[in-house]
Amino acid sequence: MHPISYTDVTAARARLKAHLPASPAMHYPLLDQLVGHDIRVWVKHENHLPVNTFKVRNATSALTALMERDAELAARGVAAASTGNHGQGLAWAGARLGIPVTICVPEGNNPEKSAVIMSYGARLVEAGATYDDAVAHCDALIAAEGLTRIHSTNNADVLAGAGTLTAEFLEQVPELDAIVLALGGGSQCVGAITVRDAVKPSLTVFATQSEGASAQHDAFHDGMPRHGQSVNTFAEGIANGSTYDMTVNALRAGLTDFVLVSEASIAQAIRDFLRITHNLAEGAGAAGLAGLHALAPKLAGKQVGIVLCGGNLDTPTLRHILQ
Amino acid sequence: MHPISYTDVTAARARLKAHLPASPAMHYPLLDQLVGHDIRVWVKHENHLPVNTFKVRNATSALTALMERDAELAARGVAAASTGNHGQGLAWAGARLGIPVTICVPEGNNPEKSAVIMSYGARLVEAGATYDDAVAHCDALIAAEGLTRIHSTNNADVLAGAGTLTAEFLEQVPELDAIVLALGGGSQCVGAITVRDAVKPSLTVFATQSEGASAQHDAFHDGMPRHGQSVNTFAEGIANGSTYDMTVNALRAGLTDFVLVSEASIAQAIRDFLRITHNLAEGAGAAGLAGLHALAPKLAGKQVGIVLCGGNLDTPTLRHILQ
Repeated sequence: MHPISYTDVTAARARLKAHLPASPAMHYPLLDQLVGHDIRVWVKHENHLPVNTFKVRNATSALTALMERDAELAARGVAAASTGNHGQGLAWAGARLGIPVTICVPEGNNPEKSAVIMSYGARLVEAGATYDDAVAHCDALIAAEGLTRIHSTNNADVLAGAGTLTAEFLEQVPELDAIVLALGGGSQCVGAITVRDAVKPSLTVFATQSEGASAQHDAFHDGMPRHGQSVNTFAEGIANGSTYDMTVNALRAGLTDFVLVSEASIAQAIRDFLRITHNLAEGAGAAGLAGLHALAPKLAGKQVGIVLCGGNLDTPTLRHILQ
Repeated sequence: MHPISYTDVTAARARLKAHLPASPAMHYPLLDQLVGHDIRVWVKHENHLPVNTFKVRNATSALTALMERDAELAARGVAAASTGNHGQGLAWAGARLGIPVTICVPEGNNPEKSAVIMSYGARLVEAGATYDDAVAHCDALIAAEGLTRIHSTNNADVLAGAGTLTAEFLEQVPELDAIVLALGGGSQCVGAITVRDAVKPSLTVFATQSEGASAQHDAFHDGMPRHGQSVNTFAEGIANGSTYDMTVNALRAGLTDFVLVSEASIAQAIRDFLRITHNLAEGAGAAGLAGLHALAPKLAGKQVGIVLCGGNLDTPTLRHILQ
């Protein structure tokens, strides 16, 4: 049923150990007060990892696995289409591991994000008017240069990397009753489900998405895969209009529930994280808190984990959110 | 000469080990580009510690030392006058260690900061119109209730706690040639000097302050202690108008240099930290970066450490800085 096994996750943890520290799990009494319902909230600070997001786990897992499997292929380089976190994660991991990285982005990509990708020595290729054009260009480069594609979701090593987050979280806070996770491609949730089934079957796993980009939420509820559904959310990290072959079934079978949150509630969650934790979350990295608000009556009295990521919020967007 | 010894610092590290993780030391290529002069910049993320600041080291060091020395006194409780980080650090450490904490603040204290202090179970006493009035009230409470005063600077255990920062930093980045530190009371710099003298005498230690609150800078340069000099800076963590008995001489003898930075350059450093690292710094926690800009021509080609703290910036101030 699952596209990966718990053994894949523990193998990924072993590969990541030399490169990434455990991210802290922190408790803030003021966050408990905010959420109410006698819930104890634990924040997994994935924003304290390099490039400020769990995506660095995914990228490092994929590149270390490739190196183990075929060093020659790894030395030739990897490529992906991305506009944000996946590209930053690959660029960081490639620099760390000495693997050439190519990231294809559409023309006019957000300059702050492109600058980060290039700062780690990755080759940035601007091509095409849309993200899909960038994907097509990336395919051509991969074929021409013999590169290895690292898909952001449809890649077992990526999913295993994401699973290390929940494995680590349960070691830090064994009392966790539930986790509420923002869902983009689904790697974080599939990783959580895989770990839950092996380590703590009583853990409930909830996903959340913006009302403005609800493809995966809709597919979870009606069982119909989605492709190219419209997206309209400032939370770029979860602005996905499609389901993915490797995650869609596991999500449907393994998630406890999947809720939508408003754009306004995501913006409010960013402000609350700033005020209470003094950490900068991006939209996708604050959506878990917004989802927790929606689920709070159901989770009364529980210990609940959420994830804070923050690598993808540029200054103009933050300025707008604070106004 | 020094008010503490390196042995005091290693003892503090041993006491802190069970309570605080090492804070990460991170390198951002875009920060190197920003600073220029072929400098490699290392950021010590003290904002990733509880209450987002190195002050939690100072408080935890003082309270664990008190427990070891006199458990009965510790059980009776500790008190301090503070408006910000020192009070938050003590409140967190007291909750962690089971020691009652009283924090005296002036009436009308910033409500966000008071809320954090109370959220950790500390007793918050609002008394008097000014900070000095709160100090006087704190003195009276200490006398009446047999509490132990934990001064933010004039306390050897506090200074030893601050020293653990530099000891940790040098283990993480042995190549460091220099560190540039924002100076409020002077604990961080005295700690750095103490560790430098014992571990790496070639390390240069620079202090920086705002032009708007230059008492300690002025004392460093002319040798005259200051008391009640005017302060006019938004960087509340370094808004000190006085020198302190336990730090003033050690700073004069041990600092390599002490430079002033403008309010505008501190605000710019907060914006640069947000854009490049996606971390929220407060004014005092960004002043090190502002100081590094001022010192950069002298530090060309060096590996330089700075510290990012961020527990003390409220949302209205951040909004203002981003506009």
